[in-house]
Amino acid sequence: MLFNTNIRLTLPVVCFVWQIAMIILFGVFIRYDEESDAHWVETKAHDNITSDIENDFYFRYPSFQDVHVMIFVGFGFLMTFLKRYSFGAVGFNFLIASFGLQWALLMQGWFHSLDPQTGKIFIGIESLINADFCVAGCLIAYGAVLGKVSPVQLLVMTLFGVTLFAVEEYIILNLLHARDAGGSMVIHTFGGYYGLSISRVLYRPNLHQSKRMQGSVYHSDTFAMIGTLFLWMFWPSFNSAITDHGDGQHRAVINTYLGLASTVLTTVAISSLSQKTGKLDMVHIQNSTLAGGVALGTAAEFMISPYGALIVGFFCGIISTMGYIFISPFLEKTLKIQDTCGIHNLHAMPGVIGGIVGAITAAAASESVYGKQGLINTFDFTGDFKDRTVLTQGGYQAAGMCVSIVFGVVGGAIVGSILKLPIWGDPADQNCFDDEVYWELPDEEEEHQGSIPPILEYNNHMIHKQQDL
Amino acid sequence: MLFNTNIRLTLPVVCFVWQIAMIILFGVFIRYDEESDAHWVETKAHDNITSDIENDFYFRYPSFQDVHVMIFVGFGFLMTFLKRYSFGAVGFNFLIASFGLQWALLMQGWFHSLDPQTGKIFIGIESLINADFCVAGCLIAYGAVLGKVSPVQLLVMTLFGVTLFAVEEYIILNLLHARDAGGSMVIHTFGGYYGLSISRVLYRPNLHQSKRMQGSVYHSDTFAMIGTLFLWMFWPSFNSAITDHGDGQHRAVINTYLGLASTVLTTVAISSLSQKTGKLDMVHIQNSTLAGGVALGTAAEFMISPYGALIVGFFCGIISTMGYIFISPFLEKTLKIQDTCGIHNLHAMPGVIGGIVGAITAAAASESVYGKQGLINTFDFTGDFKDRTVLTQGGYQAAGMCVSIVFGVVGGAIVGSILKLPIWGDPADQNCFDDEVYWELPDEEEEHQGSIPPILEYNNHMIHKQQDL
Amino acid sequence: MLFNTNIRLTLPVVCFVWQIAMIILFGVFIRYDEESDAHWVETKAHDNITSDIENDFYFRYPSFQDVHVMIFVGFGFLMTFLKRYSFGAVGFNFLIASFGLQWALLMQGWFHSLDPQTGKIFIGIESLINADFCVAGCLIAYGAVLGKVSPVQLLVMTLFGVTLFAVEEYIILNLLHARDAGGSMVIHTFGGYYGLSISRVLYRPNLHQSKRMQGSVYHSDTFAMIGTLFLWMFWPSFNSAITDHGDGQHRAVINTYLGLASTVLTTVAISSLSQKTGKLDMVHIQNSTLAGGVALGTAAEFMISPYGALIVGFFCGIISTMGYIFISPFLEKTLKIQDTCGIHNLHAMPGVIGGIVGAITAAAASESVYGKQGLINTFDFTGDFKDRTVLTQGGYQAAGMCVSIVFGVVGGAIVGSILKLPIWGDPADQNCFDDEVYWELPDEEEEHQGSIPPILEYNNHMIHKQQDL
Repeated sequence: MLFNTNIRLTLPVVCFVWQIAMIILFGVFIRYDEESDAHWVETKAHDNITSDIENDFYFRYPSFQDVHVMIFVGFGFLMTFLKRYSFGAVGFNFLIASFGLQWALLMQGWFHSLDPQTGKIFIGIESLINADFCVAGCLIAYGAVLGKVSPVQLLVMTLFGVTLFAVEEYIILNLLHARDAGGSMVIHTFGGYYGLSISRVLYRPNLHQSKRMQGSVYHSDTFAMIGTLFLWMFWPSFNSAITDHGDGQHRAVINTYLGLASTVLTTVAISSLSQKTGKLDMVHIQNSTLAGGVALGTAAEFMISPYGALIVGFFCGIISTMGYIFISPFLEKTLKIQDTCGIHNLHAMPGVIGGIVGAITAAAASESVYGKQGLINTFDFTGDFKDRTVLTQGGYQAAGMCVSIVFGVVGGAIVGSILKLPIWGDPADQNCFDDEVYWELPDEEEEHQGSIPPILEYNNHMIHKQQDL
Repeated sequence: MLFNTNIRLTLPVVCFVWQIAMIILFGVFIRYDEESDAHWVETKAHDNITSDIENDFYFRYPSFQDVHVMIFVGFGFLMTFLKRYSFGAVGFNFLIASFGLQWALLMQGWFHSLDPQTGKIFIGIESLINADFCVAGCLIAYGAVLGKVSPVQLLVMTLFGVTLFAVEEYIILNLLHARDAGGSMVIHTFGGYYGLSISRVLYRPNLHQSKRMQGSVYHSDTFAMIGTLFLWMFWPSFNSAITDHGDGQHRAVINTYLGLASTVLTTVAISSLSQKTGKLDMVHIQNSTLAGGVALGTAAEFMISPYGALIVGFFCGIISTMGYIFISPFLEKTLKIQDTCGIHNLHAMPGVIGGIVGAITAAAASESVYGKQGLINTFDFTGDFKDRTVLTQGGYQAAGMCVSIVFGVVGGAIVGSILKLPIWGDPADQNCFDDEVYWELPDEEEEHQGSIPPILEYNNHMIHKQQDL
Repeated sequence: MLFNTNIRLTLPVVCFVWQIAMIILFGVFIRYDEESDAHWVETKAHDNITSDIENDFYFRYPSFQDVHVMIFVGFGFLMTFLKRYSFGAVGFNFLIASFGLQWALLMQGWFHSLDPQTGKIFIGIESLINADFCVAGCLIAYGAVLGKVSPVQLLVMTLFGVTLFAVEEYIILNLLHARDAGGSMVIHTFGGYYGLSISRVLYRPNLHQSKRMQGSVYHSDTFAMIGTLFLWMFWPSFNSAITDHGDGQHRAVINTYLGLASTVLTTVAISSLSQKTGKLDMVHIQNSTLAGGVALGTAAEFMISPYGALIVGFFCGIISTMGYIFISPFLEKTLKIQDTCGIHNLHAMPGVIGGIVGAITAAAASESVYGKQGLINTFDFTGDFKDRTVLTQGGYQAAGMCVSIVFGVVGGAIVGSILKLPIWGDPADQNCFDDEVYWELPDEEEEHQGSIPPILEYNNHMIHKQQDL
């Protein structure tokens, strides 16, 4: 075989060198912001802040922790559905998120918050949330190549993914001044197309050789539901984590909560319709139920109104589930995109829908609905953008969505080409989706003793005892 | 057989029609409240609110998210204990909660917060918590019929359950002006008897035909502990989520935290006593350890005092565990109530105890313990109720408990009769507790390869390879 | 055999008697503090507190709930890695934590907050956090003896563990006035050596007789990752839960978040280096990834700076993973310490490192970095300690670490001797790590039906049906 999955050299080297690089770069660039610095007591006095509770920490920390759970348990366990790739799903997710968030703090810092006077990046709780968001984009991409790449490839993918993310985010949020609090465009559309594009480049024509490993088993599907539910429950925190204090966070939560509830019903409906005798398919329940949260990533902070959120969720459940039934097989056959977790249906498509919904909702915003100041606050029509109209804003929102698609597709194609080099230790076609390749697996022999009839088991114990003598 | 479990028509129709109805009704009735509306900036100025942190969102959002976890992961995974009904447990729980919370926002809105001038319901974070609470009542009821009904029946059960809930809640909290922040009466007693009553009507004399499916396996019991622990840990949030700001929430947390700790010890004691050589029974640990939280649902916000909370937990652990040992078999044999999860022991009985504890604690309240204003705040002795004495309050609390029982029993009987119609696709007696009926299950053949001796496994792989050729 | 594992008498007696003792002692000593008492409305007026949001509850409740999850789900599931000890891991963890937190409220209350005038202990949210912290010390110790002791022994271990904890904590925090917000010394070092010392005394020379039970299986390793991830994600809350309002909590979160991320990369690197072809070992990923959080338990609230936190995490990942590879086998062979979960590598060593890092960081603190008032606030240089220099503080930090080691080692030796008495129902050497001894296990026969070919399964069902007749 041409495949050499020995990563005993590359993986430790990448981990060590990159982590040391992080330490050096953090030493040069990263400092506490004024709300997390011990000088906060002076800042308070200077700014006439009467109470510690005004520290941004208390506005955002509960949401941050929910987002953190989504990143590590949510994405990690969602991918454990494969019968023999749970270690890789949870473990590699853990690894690349841990690296990605450090790199994201630097990249996002350089682009968004580099202090021109000191040359430093000052970080606080909102920076941590944004770093987690950035990582989410890369974890989405991981879903497309799950089981088919080595951990070294994943780290490379994350390095470039975070870099691309920071640039497209800068263009969309700062230059175009689009709003995208929950990242329909910036996170989901980008992450989705980035992963799909990489998967296209890494196309494996003989992937059917590991077909026996590509399904789930009963318990692995149950584990995956842990991921699904934590993503689903905490999505309101995801979409509200960095929105405006007060009504902004409050409204984003309500909209996301409602949109997701609506998605569940239409997902179940389509899933049931698609199977003989109306049985439900776990793949749909695990994934498509989340599409409403993705699609409200842009508009959740807007006055989309509760029934508007329900409508978005309604259609996303339908479209995402249909994606699993019709579009994924088509993508694999025709476009040669092998999308292990179906991120096209869960992130890419709903992300695009979210971008469109956001553009329309922004363009339709009015002073009567938002109030004069409310409109300014919600769309941040201040500074250079104080004369922007809602229609213009809608246009820039749409432009932002295009940027995220382009960055995803083109970036993914380039990074995919890099990952195609035969130096990364990726698995052979017949060893895909198998933890055996990168993990020391426990010896399972004993697990099934429970199923051995008592008499045999007794003998078995005797054998053990004799061995012990 | 008479049983037709094909739900390919009914389930999608119910999901679609009801979800569309939700969208229409939300469009007509539901709006953001002033704390989640973009006009909040004007409200702040008008009401002299100096900081966004005064938005109710920041008082309740962390508790809301904990409650949300209890509803979806807590209740969902608690019911995964059956060896082959984990998909149904988690999946149907997910479905009915998602529908129920939408319907609850409407029903509770109409009864509690319909604005007479605009004809609208204004929702905020507290509405979401109350919707989750309302759903909890229906999920409790699901525990009694777990594995014996179709998802369509569950949706019907939830539709009526939420409706009944909103009415009994209105009577208990508004008309009787009883206090029940954590819902000992409103949620647990009602939900418990509602489920038991339905289960009685749906009695299956030949349920023993699926006896082989009614037990747990090692891993399913471990999954269920995820549900138990998230319920147990977050119960302080449940009982404090809608109590008064400040000391009200603070005290409810302390009491629930202590009561639950006490319950664990007595549950273990009774469980150990009940088995030969003192072995523990997972059923007790999974369920009875939670009884203290149920029983403090009413009194947690009162000055029951820390040792009072411990006493409540102490007795609930004993009673609930004894319920599993003695009362459940009795109920099944004599009253023909088949209670899959033992909700009588976990919710109905502890709920009634909670109602009684609440009534006594209220009747015993005094100005010396609460302070003059503290007493008024805790029992909301304002407006029409400003002259009510604590003794009267105790009486109304007791009356409230009776209302919840009556609504549960009578409502359950009626809804049970509806569910008995042979149109809902429920499973045959020999197919109960089996995910096979409503779920596409993964092919398990491969899972056990691990247990095959290496040589056989090698051959097995060879076979696969030949198939691939 | 000499081993009698019948605990039908001892376990219920201990649970009942101790719980009743708790109720009596709580009745005598424990009261609500002024922020959780119904008199809060008067306190507010008296202290000119303008808003309920100033109640400490809102500063600490989100962190408290995260810590609570770490105690019950984090520690509980981390220990489920053994193939057949998941019930004991999660269940006994649940039991001893529930007892321990009650006893901790009393012990910590007597030492830290007994009101001299009233003779009462007034508890609030910070007390609950501290009780959870105290319990953490005992759960760490449980890791060393996992699978080798009875639940009665665990309760005894917890009783003494909490007692010792409260004393050493009093010496370290109050007398020495060391800072240790996340408990590198007070919790991890103490807990680690306490457990190791007990394990040494309870040394079982023939433990290899239960070697067949000492490994993991695929699903048990996946369950353990639930514990790992909840510990990892919520560790920032652990280290910040009781730090100063405002910048103190904010900074502790940032430092811990970064330190833990860094640990993951070096853990993966060393794990990969240690295995043929660079495969990863789940034991390392489950445990060593957490070492950075332990080691930042003291310094997280200091101005260690972001890159400082990364450096600490960097080395802890290396040292902890190397501990699993080299030191644990050495400890077992040479020092006869059988450390089931490797707490020496996860808690004891990183705890000591954390103490040293804390001492150095404290000694190196300066007014230019902290600001004049910031330095006073961070190190609490007020009252009797207002003239203490940072150098002196560093010395006292180091002294504190020694106290925690001494208490752990000596306390563990004494408690171990008590636990060696042949009255506690501990398992025989060949029955260690087996839930069978203390739990009613489900009959597994049915679980594997899925693997039986359809025809056989059909017969099998027939057999059941005949049995039913």
